[in-house]
Amino acid sequence: MADVIVVGAGLIGPVLSVFLRKEGHRVTVYERGPDGREAFRAAHRSINLTLCERGFRALDSIGAGDIVRSISVPAYGRLIHSVDGDLAYQPYGNNEEAIYSVSRRDLNAALLNFAQQNFDIDFRFNEKCTGVDLATATLETTNSLSGNVTRHKASSIFACDGAYSAVRSQLQRVNRFNYSQQYWEQGYKELSVPATATGGWVSEKNVLHLWPRGHHMLIGFPNLDGSFTCSWHIPFEGELSFESIKTEADLLKHFEMSFPDALPHMPNLVSDFFANPPNSMVTIKCFPWSFQDKVVLMGDAAHAIYPSYGQGANAGFEDCAVIYDCMRQYNGDRRAVFAEYERRRKPHTDAIANLCIEHFIELRDLVGDRNFLLKKEIERKINKLYPEKYKDLYSMITFACLPYADALRIDREQRAIVDQIMNTEKIEERLNSAEVERLIDDLMRPRRSYTAASSDD
Amino acid sequence: MADVIVVGAGLIGPVLSVFLRKEGHRVTVYERGPDGREAFRAAHRSINLTLCERGFRALDSIGAGDIVRSISVPAYGRLIHSVDGDLAYQPYGNNEEAIYSVSRRDLNAALLNFAQQNFDIDFRFNEKCTGVDLATATLETTNSLSGNVTRHKASSIFACDGAYSAVRSQLQRVNRFNYSQQYWEQGYKELSVPATATGGWVSEKNVLHLWPRGHHMLIGFPNLDGSFTCSWHIPFEGELSFESIKTEADLLKHFEMSFPDALPHMPNLVSDFFANPPNSMVTIKCFPWSFQDKVVLMGDAAHAIYPSYGQGANAGFEDCAVIYDCMRQYNGDRRAVFAEYERRRKPHTDAIANLCIEHFIELRDLVGDRNFLLKKEIERKINKLYPEKYKDLYSMITFACLPYADALRIDREQRAIVDQIMNTEKIEERLNSAEVERLIDDLMRPRRSYTAASSDD
Repeated sequence: MADVIVVGAGLIGPVLSVFLRKEGHRVTVYERGPDGREAFRAAHRSINLTLCERGFRALDSIGAGDIVRSISVPAYGRLIHSVDGDLAYQPYGNNEEAIYSVSRRDLNAALLNFAQQNFDIDFRFNEKCTGVDLATATLETTNSLSGNVTRHKASSIFACDGAYSAVRSQLQRVNRFNYSQQYWEQGYKELSVPATATGGWVSEKNVLHLWPRGHHMLIGFPNLDGSFTCSWHIPFEGELSFESIKTEADLLKHFEMSFPDALPHMPNLVSDFFANPPNSMVTIKCFPWSFQDKVVLMGDAAHAIYPSYGQGANAGFEDCAVIYDCMRQYNGDRRAVFAEYERRRKPHTDAIANLCIEHFIELRDLVGDRNFLLKKEIERKINKLYPEKYKDLYSMITFACLPYADALRIDREQRAIVDQIMNTEKIEERLNSAEVERLIDDLMRPRRSYTAASSDD
Repeated sequence: MADVIVVGAGLIGPVLSVFLRKEGHRVTVYERGPDGREAFRAAHRSINLTLCERGFRALDSIGAGDIVRSISVPAYGRLIHSVDGDLAYQPYGNNEEAIYSVSRRDLNAALLNFAQQNFDIDFRFNEKCTGVDLATATLETTNSLSGNVTRHKASSIFACDGAYSAVRSQLQRVNRFNYSQQYWEQGYKELSVPATATGGWVSEKNVLHLWPRGHHMLIGFPNLDGSFTCSWHIPFEGELSFESIKTEADLLKHFEMSFPDALPHMPNLVSDFFANPPNSMVTIKCFPWSFQDKVVLMGDAAHAIYPSYGQGANAGFEDCAVIYDCMRQYNGDRRAVFAEYERRRKPHTDAIANLCIEHFIELRDLVGDRNFLLKKEIERKINKLYPEKYKDLYSMITFACLPYADALRIDREQRAIVDQIMNTEKIEERLNSAEVERLIDDLMRPRRSYTAASSDD
């Protein structure tokens, strides 16, 4: 009998395994895909992602942070490309704060190596979960090469097997399991911008490139090798949609019209676009996340979110840190551990799920908008005057570790303040007037620091 | 090849079959349970339900209304039982309007007989759906007696197989299928009050009996044979819950305390309670409801709701009437029929799902409340003064046929008016004063009749 089982050797499985090892457990990880440290999970998955403060906090606590930093490209802001070629730069934070763009495949390989080489984790590849006996924490796997079916009993099963979790589908059969999956009417395809002949970047490297176009948008992530990975988000159906783009000519027409400055750097546009079906975006919420002390869901298996906020992996890594914390709190009582973990974590993953939907719309519709930019300016102004008391939502999510739902609540309070300032007559001209500064003083002085305003989790 | 297939011979299947027959189709119905016109679907299902205006409108349009009325008991209002034995009567409507209490088993048998004898519908029992090929509208069934597996090809499959629809589980595999199932923290058990020795009713017959107790409640439905069927709604977990009631003594203690006037009429209380597991209440929403022109979901398979508003069967019968209407509109183009049916119907079944949750809380918490009763009195007053312009929500849902979402929207407008009147000083004493009547006039005169305010569906 194995001690504990982890299902899934994607991003969350290896990290969780190390946390479990630190707690003294023998860990076996079953992964349905092959090893080879290759793109075995890349099918239908984004091949780039971003990591931020809260992800690195979890990685640093197991000693994996610097390894991951070394394979990532920091981006300090967004570079907004208008149709006529104008560029506008929006720093994410204080110019030293960055999000880190990394290829999913590189990150996966680094985490597997880290867990296997330093912590003696036992990874079994090509073992697809084909059944779970919840009552006895027994996992059934079928080897995809030999067809052999094996049953593995453990004290507990930790499911890190992603948005389409096979373990969760067993939990769904338990009475009164709440579940929802909601798809967005838009999807995305990934398109590549190769490195220059000398291996450099064709455009500014340490930023995320963004081409917001209202009903569609293009995003570019920098890669370590000089290339960019772009994702083009468009509706599945309608006038401009995956359905309507049938020919090379259709595709090129849209790019010439909407992204004239990007098109010359995309020699593989046509083959990239027509090679794969579009990726869909889904929000998955469920509850409970656990069955007694036997099975627990982690990461996307418990809460799949849109990629718009770059929080998917970060939220999963944070899950690992939280359940580790619960283990230290409840020591041997694993039922209490699972119950406390899901109680603590659920409100926050619900919050980030909702924020991702909101942020996607913001990126697409608002980032290039005049009012949006003015709001951002007001926020920077308040933040400069009251750095401890005001942090914009993006920064609270990305450059701080306060729990998501707390960040959301504080943001809604802050928004009310910004709205009051926005309503000042001729605010655009008078942002730096003594009167507006007095108004900011009046509104901000009574507030606590944003960290103090966070509930004690 | 069969013409069209209906899956499920519960309440919706037979009614839909008749509508399809009226459109000239040959219909075969596959039902996983046995025939025998017995309680084959009663396991884990409420054995009593109520029908109202919109259900009867659909039944009347196929000529089944009077048959169903003849096996139902009309209830003209609620009789509220307080703990100390006081009774308060609340008419549902205008004293002529009633909801109809009927046993699920009797209703099911009547509808099966009606469809089979008058419309030559072919019912196949003990045929469990074990697969659906969406692309070819082929149903696979397994006979539960012989084990024989058969495949049935049709032009379309109509799934009327309930909240846990086997057909829907196939649709769920299609990309971008939105789905949610949300359970309530309370469940219910059914308890019986037998007829008197002479076959009469031990208490008032033409009402629904209600014992609201805040965190739990008992409801009594009259049956044709002199008995009542009660359902006791309590939490699954907690102080008073299915989990906490372990012994006869626990059960009797709660009944003596909460329902002293009901207990003497419940000789089978202990065996009723301990014989079966509690029923759970689930809200299921999904979309789309159809796949091309091949498969479509109807009734609970498309939208399961709480039983609190007595709308489950009514909403399902209404689905049948709506899809029939779409068939007449789009004649041969079944893809257009399915698309129009789901487009028209979805907002309304979402609305009733939400209203059922709201109404359950109202029944449990508010029906005995002073403010609630005052509001009802104000509503009756307004309705008396402006009968064409004001109809309370319960009446719009139950005694009218305007679409659910329209009823909800109109109710929210009306609520704002009632709230304004509630805010009048000493309203309890001055409800019939000239001043209050003037206020009502001012608020109501500009409004259109509630039927005119309904969107053209």
